[in-house]
Amino acid sequence: MMLQSVDLDRAFHALADPTRRGMVDRLAQGPASVKELAAPLSMALPSVMKHLRVLEAGGIVLSEKAGRVRTYHIEPAALAGIEEWVSRRKAAWNRQFDRLEAYLTEETEDPQQEPEK
Amino acid sequence: MMLQSVDLDRAFHALADPTRRGMVDRLAQGPASVKELAAPLSMALPSVMKHLRVLEAGGIVLSEKAGRVRTYHIEPAALAGIEEWVSRRKAAWNRQFDRLEAYLTEETEDPQQEPEK
Repeated sequence: MMLQSVDLDRAFHALADPTRRGMVDRLAQGPASVKELAAPLSMALPSVMKHLRVLEAGGIVLSEKAGRVRTYHIEPAALAGIEEWVSRRKAAWNRQFDRLEAYLTEETEDPQQEPEK
Repeated sequence: MMLQSVDLDRAFHALADPTRRGMVDRLAQGPASVKELAAPLSMALPSVMKHLRVLEAGGIVLSEKAGRVRTYHIEPAALAGIEEWVSRRKAAWNRQFDRLEAYLTEETEDPQQEPEK
């Protein structure tokens, strides 16, 4: 999935906080209710809800309400989008680095190419 | 490389901005000076410097100064750290999803397990 720039802004922002990354850790183990997500945190419920809204705005999690219980789960496409964005830049940098290394090796192995001293 | 929580905060925050992601795009093609990084941007130099400081604080880029020219380049270990963090959560979620699917298939295939109507 290709994420638009504004989505990437929100997705990266959503993960730039240890509480929210902890929620993603929990949700990676399976769906959970607000109550279950709040249980390990020493944090007021409105703060928990606020973090969940940031994760939802970033596309990292989705929620659905059944009766009075809202259940959250991971949106794997958003994680895949982030992974792909990072992976492409890393790959481009590595290619660039390999080319530089190959060039330097060539220069060293061929004395005729060396500048006169 | 395992990034600490505080480093991940800064690394994700650094990438939560389109200008900074554009700088990473440029640097993935090879090292660049502040002047080169500023060239395509309609932005005052102090703003460019501020973005670069955020990228550097997030460990995404490194810089070195030779004479009066400061050159920036990608720190691939930080990108690898982010990629790994995201990839692990995605993998955990997928395992969980596969288990659920296997369970549901089993339930459907074995009529004795079905609840009475």
